[in-house]
Amino acid sequence: MIAKKIDSLGVDIIEAGSAITSDGEREAIKRIAGEGLNAEICSYCRIRKEDIDAAIGCDVASIHLVVPVSDLHIQEKLKKDREAVREMAVEMTEYAKSHGLLVELSGEDASRADLEYLKSVYNAGIDAGADRLCFCDTVGILTPERAYDIFSDLSQLRAPISIHCHNDFGMATANTVAALRAGAREAHVTINGIGERAGNTSLEEVVMVLYSLYKQKTKIDIKGLYTTSRLVSRLSGIPVAPNKAIVGGNAFTHEAGIHVHGLLANTATYEPITPELVGRERRIVLGKHAGRSSVVLALKELGLSASEKQIDDIVVRMKELGDKGKRVTDADLQTIAETVLGIYQEAKVRLEELTVVAGNTVMPTASIRLKVNGNHVVEAGVGTGPVDAAINALRKAVSGVADVQLDEYHVDAITGGTDALVEVWVKLSKGGKTITARGARTDIIMASVEAVLEGINRLIQQEQNRKS
Amino acid sequence: MIAKKIDSLGVDIIEAGSAITSDGEREAIKRIAGEGLNAEICSYCRIRKEDIDAAIGCDVASIHLVVPVSDLHIQEKLKKDREAVREMAVEMTEYAKSHGLLVELSGEDASRADLEYLKSVYNAGIDAGADRLCFCDTVGILTPERAYDIFSDLSQLRAPISIHCHNDFGMATANTVAALRAGAREAHVTINGIGERAGNTSLEEVVMVLYSLYKQKTKIDIKGLYTTSRLVSRLSGIPVAPNKAIVGGNAFTHEAGIHVHGLLANTATYEPITPELVGRERRIVLGKHAGRSSVVLALKELGLSASEKQIDDIVVRMKELGDKGKRVTDADLQTIAETVLGIYQEAKVRLEELTVVAGNTVMPTASIRLKVNGNHVVEAGVGTGPVDAAINALRKAVSGVADVQLDEYHVDAITGGTDALVEVWVKLSKGGKTITARGARTDIIMASVEAVLEGINRLIQQEQNRKS
Repeated sequence: MIAKKIDSLGVDIIEAGSAITSDGEREAIKRIAGEGLNAEICSYCRIRKEDIDAAIGCDVASIHLVVPVSDLHIQEKLKKDREAVREMAVEMTEYAKSHGLLVELSGEDASRADLEYLKSVYNAGIDAGADRLCFCDTVGILTPERAYDIFSDLSQLRAPISIHCHNDFGMATANTVAALRAGAREAHVTINGIGERAGNTSLEEVVMVLYSLYKQKTKIDIKGLYTTSRLVSRLSGIPVAPNKAIVGGNAFTHEAGIHVHGLLANTATYEPITPELVGRERRIVLGKHAGRSSVVLALKELGLSASEKQIDDIVVRMKELGDKGKRVTDADLQTIAETVLGIYQEAKVRLEELTVVAGNTVMPTASIRLKVNGNHVVEAGVGTGPVDAAINALRKAVSGVADVQLDEYHVDAITGGTDALVEVWVKLSKGGKTITARGARTDIIMASVEAVLEGINRLIQQEQNRKS
Repeated sequence: MIAKKIDSLGVDIIEAGSAITSDGEREAIKRIAGEGLNAEICSYCRIRKEDIDAAIGCDVASIHLVVPVSDLHIQEKLKKDREAVREMAVEMTEYAKSHGLLVELSGEDASRADLEYLKSVYNAGIDAGADRLCFCDTVGILTPERAYDIFSDLSQLRAPISIHCHNDFGMATANTVAALRAGAREAHVTINGIGERAGNTSLEEVVMVLYSLYKQKTKIDIKGLYTTSRLVSRLSGIPVAPNKAIVGGNAFTHEAGIHVHGLLANTATYEPITPELVGRERRIVLGKHAGRSSVVLALKELGLSASEKQIDDIVVRMKELGDKGKRVTDADLQTIAETVLGIYQEAKVRLEELTVVAGNTVMPTASIRLKVNGNHVVEAGVGTGPVDAAINALRKAVSGVADVQLDEYHVDAITGGTDALVEVWVKLSKGGKTITARGARTDIIMASVEAVLEGINRLIQQEQNRKS
């Protein structure tokens, strides 16, 4: 799935794995190589015959042949000398070429290597048939100006050279771009910057730096960047920080009042690019740093109207809630607005009793008694776990008054002990209108029910606000 | 707590908030200003009298006075002209100075401003008494070479100038460092790079780039970087990506076999700095990319010995598990090793029956029946929620055979629906030995019990392996 996605994104080469690693890795590489993608499919190889044989067995078009080139790697890791390593590089290049592979000859730990020795390895490799070269900043110690100087030199060699950066100091993107400016013809990147330790260079950052800051288009379909990021995060299980450039959850989210005020006049004031450019949407959230502009916008969404004075009051109360360090949900704003506007909207749906039974020999089962529009409704539900059972019972019980969809159910990672606070956040929809609500308890079942129930009541009330 | 921590870390200035924001913000700033910290305490202010009055009310030493300087901001956001804005900047500088405040006069959106106009604002501000200047790259569009050129010029002004970057393109660290190299005297940074949208420059990255790559020491206590990062992440609720430089969970974690092989010879082969330098520890994890070296290391930890042939077999099986995309825990390796070594260690503790009841009107209660060393043990426990009740019952039931501590309990964020797979990871200890184990079910209670039970059995077995 990932290979197909990045192929459709427009990448030239996919390093699909290291064939020697495991049966699963070989199966994956072979299947990717057999997909008929546009991209060249490549396997990572050490300068060992068995690695290249494994790559050949996977029907790849090319290998990324990695040669340790720093004295540290040559002496401490390989226990060899420069001469021997260069010979191995030449032999393995010849071996791979004789089997019809494209060879990208790579200097591992090149940023700590003697540049003259490195060039001698590259030149010997080119003579042996290497098609491309690569410079690996294995421990991420390059700086943009050093990368620029080095690549101004190395780009004069007889084969095109690529840059492979690690992000140990947070400079992978800048170093990669500097190398490209100085003549690198290819960049090794990963989606979301994942990789060993602090990861590798982010594809999305390099592509957007080139596009927006250097006005250099690549073949990459930038509208597909966000969906690609989400796919890789979901399948790898590696979360993306909210404050990650381009693809982070908050990269196009605005809270600060002065920012939202500016955005309403012209989105360019606080956005370098429009979110739509990379397949995303702008999001304005409420919190203590939010201002009047954000509240006016949100009230309109909720179908509530308020006077200037009332808006001021709502802003103050929203900030009070934000001061407690919580994200302010739609349901929170609605509660505040109702208090200020003197609307008392009795909850249509109230929880009277909930009992959940679970264990290893019982099917998770929940019974629920609600008061809905003054009537008692009793229902029961089962589920894949206690939370699922409780929410199923709840949704069955309210189905008579509200056909509510649970679009998103999210529990923040729980860390600490089994008695830690569990924060549940839900997104519900009904007839095209969505709402976010939250529950926080040490009991995950109650937190989940609280969030969903709050959302249901708010959706019903919004509908009534709009009708009246 | 954060202010005290970053003060002890050695920062010169703490921008504690924007005093005009809310009561809570003012209380926080005032309390930080009254803590008697070494750092200068600062408030963010717009060029408005009420903002400066609010800052004065908080007893701060200085203000970060932000003046929109791009035509986009001046015309679209403020609906004013250049002349008027410069006058406001001068007036507000004079007003703040007359109240004894230090003034850092800041150009907002300076990277999209006319440089000559920007300098005229700075010079007028200096004449009005501004102590320092700041250049804000408000939407993160600087490049290192542009930052260098601009600061080579601006550092010639009559007051020291600072750099304030946003990370919209992932270049905040490189741009900040470039500005410092060209004469910036101060850098605006945040812990973990948090901030509006994609965030601001990371303190930890800038400090370590200067320290390691430019051999420039700062006043920052680099050994405190990691604990500071954890504190801010915990209190802000903003997670740090595993692949974040310096402070990410995996920044000093190694899985790849060739990396671990190199590390065992010399840790410098795959680490630019030692983890201890920034207050951390190295971690070697198992997975499909792990190699023989990692397995040998882990078996030694587990007190198991194996022949060369058996180790090969264990490596293959570990990779098979890794191929399924799972992280391989200590307990997983132990299961594999036992199979290969032909040791059949019957689980000492087996779950026979577990029943948990929870709800809004019942105290979460669990009953459990275990078979421990062939005997039935029945216990019950209550807790703050159903998981807590179940684990309490389990721990009571095994207390006769194993006094096990639950050191860490972690549930990955749950996303999707209420029937999503819940992954629980635990770290248990007994007599100084720790073990990690995992449970994965759609039922959070069963996933938690599974993980803890697996860990308990493994701890007991390890103890027996070492004794025999």
